[in-house]
Amino acid sequence: MLTPGPVTTSLTVRQAMLRDWGSRDEAFIALTTRVRNQLADLAGGSGTHVAVPMQGSGTFAVEAMIGTLLPRRGKLLVMVNGAYGERMVRMAETMGRCVDAVETSEDRPVDPTALDRALTADPEITHVAVVYCETTSGILNPMEAVAEVVARQSRRLLIDAMSAFGALPLDAARTPFDAVAAAANKCLESVPGVSFVVARKEALERAKGNAHSLSLDLHQQWRGFTENGQWRFTPPTHVLAALALALDEHAAEGGVDGRSTRYRNNCRILINGMRALGFRTFLTDADQAPIIVTFHTPADPAFVFEVFYDRLRRRGFVIYPGKLTSARSFRIGCIGRLGETEMRCALAAIRATLEEMGVTSGRP
Amino acid sequence: MLTPGPVTTSLTVRQAMLRDWGSRDEAFIALTTRVRNQLADLAGGSGTHVAVPMQGSGTFAVEAMIGTLLPRRGKLLVMVNGAYGERMVRMAETMGRCVDAVETSEDRPVDPTALDRALTADPEITHVAVVYCETTSGILNPMEAVAEVVARQSRRLLIDAMSAFGALPLDAARTPFDAVAAAANKCLESVPGVSFVVARKEALERAKGNAHSLSLDLHQQWRGFTENGQWRFTPPTHVLAALALALDEHAAEGGVDGRSTRYRNNCRILINGMRALGFRTFLTDADQAPIIVTFHTPADPAFVFEVFYDRLRRRGFVIYPGKLTSARSFRIGCIGRLGETEMRCALAAIRATLEEMGVTSGRP
Repeated sequence: MLTPGPVTTSLTVRQAMLRDWGSRDEAFIALTTRVRNQLADLAGGSGTHVAVPMQGSGTFAVEAMIGTLLPRRGKLLVMVNGAYGERMVRMAETMGRCVDAVETSEDRPVDPTALDRALTADPEITHVAVVYCETTSGILNPMEAVAEVVARQSRRLLIDAMSAFGALPLDAARTPFDAVAAAANKCLESVPGVSFVVARKEALERAKGNAHSLSLDLHQQWRGFTENGQWRFTPPTHVLAALALALDEHAAEGGVDGRSTRYRNNCRILINGMRALGFRTFLTDADQAPIIVTFHTPADPAFVFEVFYDRLRRRGFVIYPGKLTSARSFRIGCIGRLGETEMRCALAAIRATLEEMGVTSGRP
Repeated sequence: MLTPGPVTTSLTVRQAMLRDWGSRDEAFIALTTRVRNQLADLAGGSGTHVAVPMQGSGTFAVEAMIGTLLPRRGKLLVMVNGAYGERMVRMAETMGRCVDAVETSEDRPVDPTALDRALTADPEITHVAVVYCETTSGILNPMEAVAEVVARQSRRLLIDAMSAFGALPLDAARTPFDAVAAAANKCLESVPGVSFVVARKEALERAKGNAHSLSLDLHQQWRGFTENGQWRFTPPTHVLAALALALDEHAAEGGVDGRSTRYRNNCRILINGMRALGFRTFLTDADQAPIIVTFHTPADPAFVFEVFYDRLRRRGFVIYPGKLTSARSFRIGCIGRLGETEMRCALAAIRATLEEMGVTSGRP
C-alpha cells in the first residue's frame, strides 16, 4: 500500500492482535500505561504533557482536542492550506464554537507572518490550530515558526500531526504546544482504530466542562486514566496491543530519526523515479514532506486515472484512489512498512502499467 | 473471559485481522457493504432500516444515535434502571439537549405504564431511549411493551441494545424503533473498535444538521456510505474484517436463535452452579437476561473480592473486576466464545478458589 494511511504494517504488529484482553484487567492497564508514556515521550512532553488515547480515527482525536481544550467562549483560528485544515473549521462550527481561518493556497505552506497579523488584529482569538503535514498535498507546514508566533502572542497552539507524528520531529520544549493529535495508523505503522492527543497537563486540568460530547471529552478520558489506569469506555484492546508492538518496532528502528531517514529515502526514490518517467510534483522539493507525494496528472490522453489505479492494484500496489487538491493530480504515499525494495518495485509496476496503457510520458 | 465484553473471541475471528486493507479500495468497500447488510438483517430492518457503522466503542454509537436523531429542539425521555440509562441522560445533557428520565430501581425492569403516564403528561417529549439489557445488573427490559407505548403515543424509540444485539430477539417489524445502537464486541463475539446503529432510513434522512459533532454525525456517516460505499474517516479496517468473519460464524451457529440457546445454557449452568455454592442472584430468574449475572457478595468475612478476582485470574478466568449496582455485588458474564465446558471449568475454578480462601459459603 502506497497510501497516506491506513498503511502497510509488519506481520508482527498484526500478530499482536491474536490475543484477547480483559479491558479492565491489570495486564491491559499496564499495556495502556506503557503506550501512554511512550507517546508522551515521542512528543518530547514527559513531565509537562500527557498522552490521552481515544477510540476511533484521527478525526475523533482532533475533534476531542478542539472540543475539550477550546473553552466554550474561546475563539479558534485555523491555519488552512488543505482539506484537513478546512475540516477543523467545520468541526468547530458544528460544535457551535467561534472560529476563523487564515488561508493559503494548497501548494504553499501556511504563513506565520499572516498569522501574526491576524492575532494582532483579533485579541479574542485564544487558540490557533494548524496541520503539521497537510495530507491533501503532502506539504510540510513550518511548525516552529508558527509556534513561535503563537507563544509570543500568548495564545495556545493545537496541532494536527496526523501524518507526521513519529516521522517528523516534534519537541514540546522547542515547539511549544498545548496539544497535538495523531493516530496509530500513519507513521507509527500500526493498524487503525485508535488515535491520541498529547496535551499539556495544565491545559487538560483547566478544560473540565468544555467538551460538547461525552465520548469525545478529553478531560474526562484523561481523568479516567489517572484515576485507575482504565479507559472510560471499552477500548479497542487488540488494536492497542498492536500499537504497543508498533511503538517497540519504532524505537528499534531508531525512533523518529530512524523512521524519518527511511521515509526520506522512500520519498527520494519515488520522486526521482517518477520524474524519470516525465511526471511533475505538485510541490517544490523544499515544501515536500516525506509522507505522501502529489503528482500532476499527465497530459497524455491515454492516461485515465481509474485504469492506472486498477492495473497497478492488480500488480499488487494500492495507491490513493482519489484526489483532494483542486488541481488535476494524484497521490502516492511513501510511509508504512516499506523500504527501498518496495519503492523500486512500485516504480517498476508504474512503468509497466504506463507502457501497457500506451502512456508515453507522465508530463503534465 | 467471563465479562460483559470485550468477550472471548474465536481464533478465526482474530486471525481475520492478519491482513492489511486499503480503506478506500474496492475490496474493503465490498466488505463494508456486506457487514452493513448483515447488521440491518439481524435487526429485521431490511428495506426500512440501514446499518451505519461507527468507529469507537458502543458509547460512541449511542451518542451518535441520540445526537443525530434527536432534533436540536426535540426532547428525550430516558428509561433508567442502571448505569447505561444514566449515561444516556448525561450524554444528552452534555450536548445541551432537553432530557428527562423515568427511573426504576436497579433490580426492577423499566415500567411501560410509568412511561405511558410520562408521555401523556409531557407532549414535548419527541423521543424515548431505553436499554434492552441493562448490563449494570444484567436485567432484561421489556422492549415490546415499551415499543408499543411509544408507537401508540406517536413518539420515536431509540434502543441501546449493546449487550443484547445478536443474542436477544429484535425485529423492527414487531418492535417498532427508529434506531438501535450496539457494538461488535458483545454477543456478536468480535473484537472491540467498531460499533453501529441500525436506523430507520426515513429518520436518518430527516436528521441532517442535527448532530452536535462532526465525527459522531450519523447522518453524514450514512451519506458517506450511500455516496461511494466508503467511510468518511479512516475505518478500523482489521477490526471490521474480524466483524465480517464473526457475523459469518454467528450465522453458522443459527443466528440469534442459535446464539441465544448457547447463552441461555451458559447462564443456567452458571446460576445453578453458583447457587449450589450458596450464592444468591441479584435478580429474579424472570428478569435475568442470559448475558451477565450479578451475585450478592457473600457474608463470610473470608471473602474479599479483590483476592477472589486475582486467584480466579491466575486459574485462567477473568471476571468483571468491579461493580456498578448500589448493592454489594459482583458480576460474571456468560457471553463470548464460551460453552458448557468453559462454564463448568469456571465453576470448578470458583469452587477451588473459595476453598483456598477459606470461604465456606457464598450465602449473602
